[in-house]
Amino acid sequence: MSLKDIGEFGFIRRIQRGCLTRPEGVLQGIGDDAAAFRTDGRLVSLMTTDLLVERVHFLRHAISGWDLGHKSLAVNLSDIAAMGGTAREAFVSIAIPESCELAYLDEIFQGMKDLAQTYAVNILGGDTTFSRSDLVINVAVHGVVAENEILTRSAARPGDVIFCTGCLGDSRAGLHLILEGTPADTPELEALLTVHRRPWPHLREGRLLASTPGVRAAIDVSDGLSSDLGHIVEESRVGARIDAARLPVSDNLRFFCRRFGRSPLEYALSGGEDYTLLLTAAADNAGRIAEAFRSAFGRPLHAIGEITDTLRMELADDADRITPIDPSGWDHFKRP
Amino acid sequence: MSLKDIGEFGFIRRIQRGCLTRPEGVLQGIGDDAAAFRTDGRLVSLMTTDLLVERVHFLRHAISGWDLGHKSLAVNLSDIAAMGGTAREAFVSIAIPESCELAYLDEIFQGMKDLAQTYAVNILGGDTTFSRSDLVINVAVHGVVAENEILTRSAARPGDVIFCTGCLGDSRAGLHLILEGTPADTPELEALLTVHRRPWPHLREGRLLASTPGVRAAIDVSDGLSSDLGHIVEESRVGARIDAARLPVSDNLRFFCRRFGRSPLEYALSGGEDYTLLLTAAADNAGRIAEAFRSAFGRPLHAIGEITDTLRMELADDADRITPIDPSGWDHFKRP
Repeated sequence: MSLKDIGEFGFIRRIQRGCLTRPEGVLQGIGDDAAAFRTDGRLVSLMTTDLLVERVHFLRHAISGWDLGHKSLAVNLSDIAAMGGTAREAFVSIAIPESCELAYLDEIFQGMKDLAQTYAVNILGGDTTFSRSDLVINVAVHGVVAENEILTRSAARPGDVIFCTGCLGDSRAGLHLILEGTPADTPELEALLTVHRRPWPHLREGRLLASTPGVRAAIDVSDGLSSDLGHIVEESRVGARIDAARLPVSDNLRFFCRRFGRSPLEYALSGGEDYTLLLTAAADNAGRIAEAFRSAFGRPLHAIGEITDTLRMELADDADRITPIDPSGWDHFKRP
Repeated sequence: MSLKDIGEFGFIRRIQRGCLTRPEGVLQGIGDDAAAFRTDGRLVSLMTTDLLVERVHFLRHAISGWDLGHKSLAVNLSDIAAMGGTAREAFVSIAIPESCELAYLDEIFQGMKDLAQTYAVNILGGDTTFSRSDLVINVAVHGVVAENEILTRSAARPGDVIFCTGCLGDSRAGLHLILEGTPADTPELEALLTVHRRPWPHLREGRLLASTPGVRAAIDVSDGLSSDLGHIVEESRVGARIDAARLPVSDNLRFFCRRFGRSPLEYALSGGEDYTLLLTAAADNAGRIAEAFRSAFGRPLHAIGEITDTLRMELADDADRITPIDPSGWDHFKRP
């Protein structure tokens, strides 16, 4: 049996067995955006870590050091955001090939430090080492949250409204431009590239939502809406129905799709790395939550569907025709 | 300017600037075995992380998956030990090349889990991804310690006795056998290989020492005695004199050195990856500390020298002749 047979999530389930040697104080182990555990204070600790590997997650010639540093930290902060937490400490491990210029490395750390500054995160340690081939960056982030404000993937209930905190699919369109070598010759395409290269973690959004009554489950959209919603559906043992017409698609993505003959719906459903938050909230509180969000951030919280009890994910079109959604997001080991 | 010009420690100093965006609650940032910071409890959090890269830190064909997993976690636990802490949570990131068998991966995680079990460490999360070339493992470990028991590198004072918790140089001899492809055809050589492949973190030793009055600075011997003692000397702004005759050299290493015409002293001074603890303690308490150590672990705590005020590291031989010690341990970027 090989990794390709069992896929990333099969492999993670395989790892999971025997990982808990001391269950007391553990609120969330493997299987959510971040781990949650008690030390001895009132606050719960959150930990998350992400590994970025050259030629898998990025092409060195296609990304500036600053963007790479920003992104390496941002994807971790996004996981803390998806737990409703405040990010506090970051730890950076980096394996450096001989071909990597010191100036590029300086840029990487500057990109991290600038983002860390924005969210009052301390970079407190890490590891530096040599690599024979690819540049590899691992960032681990520690954060905190009050126990009654943790947002897990397993708390959704039938009847909940499904929200997301920003547009979907833009990052995937930006990646398409990079992979195809298409020049970004209009402001619209340039904007899509920027979304892909410099994702912003929705930490403030996550904190507001976590402290607002009625918000239940959350995850960040890293692998794609269908895949990430699939995690909520699976962990919460519920179903979900998404309204196609309500998926937030940017004008930039519409422009891209017209020009290259693509489907905005497909990009919104399956495009990864948007790092918006996907959440569910009690229907009774949904209006107040959306209002609080708009008043805090000056932009809408998008209601895109409803949690059901069907154990399936479905898409409803304008005419209320229902088609099943396949969790077709990203799996690192089941590559075509 | 390139990385080779400034070396690993020059690069770390370069990274350090601008990493602290929120100094309150930070007891130790970049530059010790682990970071130390307060959340909101009585205990201080410790965090450390180590990146192991194929063809730099290990050769896949020369190490079993179990040993690799054990070692990846052990080197991190050793850093928590060197801060006087208790290790609590581990986070494992792994980038997997296509050539890596699932059975080998299972072994890696089993090696980690077996060690985690020994020290009641929970593996609570991580990241799994694909790699185009080398197998890469990053482990991050969270631990705790009471604030008044933290052992840093900067607390040594002139007059302190320098101790170490185990033999020095064995691991380097084991590595030599692997690199030269020399068969381990005697129990002595086999034992050296085992020390290299399965280092044991001195967590219990660290806890005992941290809670014993008079123990001041500590570091784990990962790069080699001369290099790691150099960190204490630099961070504490002191000097050190090591007594050559008192360096603990195992019978196995003596056997190896006789057979291959090597110098035990050189291996003890510069051999890395022993993962014993190096510490300094007030001279008045030294006897009681050594006694407490022996009674707890049934083996000696080795007094190997003295902290001085010279700002230099020196070696004293049997006839009390003094020669300077060069911090000639491992620097990842200044490779020959």
